[in-house]
Amino acid sequence: MSNSENSSELNESVSHNVYFEGKVQSLGLETTKGKATVGVMKKGTYTFSASSPEEMVIVSGIMKVKLEGEDFKAYKEQNNFHVAAGTSFDIICEDDVAYICYYG
Amino acid sequence: MSNSENSSELNESVSHNVYFEGKVQSLGLETTKGKATVGVMKKGTYTFSASSPEEMVIVSGIMKVKLEGEDFKAYKEQNNFHVAAGTSFDIICEDDVAYICYYG
Repeated sequence: MSNSENSSELNESVSHNVYFEGKVQSLGLETTKGKATVGVMKKGTYTFSASSPEEMVIVSGIMKVKLEGEDFKAYKEQNNFHVAAGTSFDIICEDDVAYICYYG
Repeated sequence: MSNSENSSELNESVSHNVYFEGKVQSLGLETTKGKATVGVMKKGTYTFSASSPEEMVIVSGIMKVKLEGEDFKAYKEQNNFHVAAGTSFDIICEDDVAYICYYG
C-alpha cells in the first residue's frame, strides 16, 4: 500500500525489532491471544531462544525448524509449532518467510 | 522471539516501511504470489491508495474496510479483500491488526 494520509486518532507507534543485521525484522501487536509479533525472515539460517512459551504460525513461505531434541521439520502457510520456554530452536529459510509469533 | 545470533548466510535486509507517524508499519517480502508486505496497524482510521491491484489478507484482529463506492465491511483473520489499481480505501482499526498485502 502507498500514499499515506494523516490518521484521525493519536496512538503509539508500532514497535519494530531488528535481528541478524536486518535479515529478520518484526513488528509488535496485541492480539486476543496476547502479545505477538509479525515478522519477515530473509533466506538464511538462524538460532533463536524463547524466554516464554511461543506459538509460531507461518503466514507465507516455508520455514524449516529444528526444535530442541528434535529433527528439522518443514512448516508452510497456516502451519504452526510451539516452542517451550527456555529452549532454543534453529530455523532455515530458503526464501523469504513471513510469520506471526504469539508469546505473551 | 529473542536472543539473536549471527546468521550463516549473507543477504540483504528486510525492507521496513513506516506510515502515519509509525502507527502503521510494514515489512517487505517476496512470495510465490509476488511481492508482498506484512504489517501492523494500531487503533486508528487510515486512508490508503493502491497504485497496483492489491490483495489484503487479515492475519490477526478485525479490519473495517470501505472500498471505493462500497460501504464499510469488517474483515477478520483469514478474510481477504481486493483493491483495484488507482483506487483509495478507508480502514478503521479498533484494536491492533496484522495483515499481509500482496501487490506485485
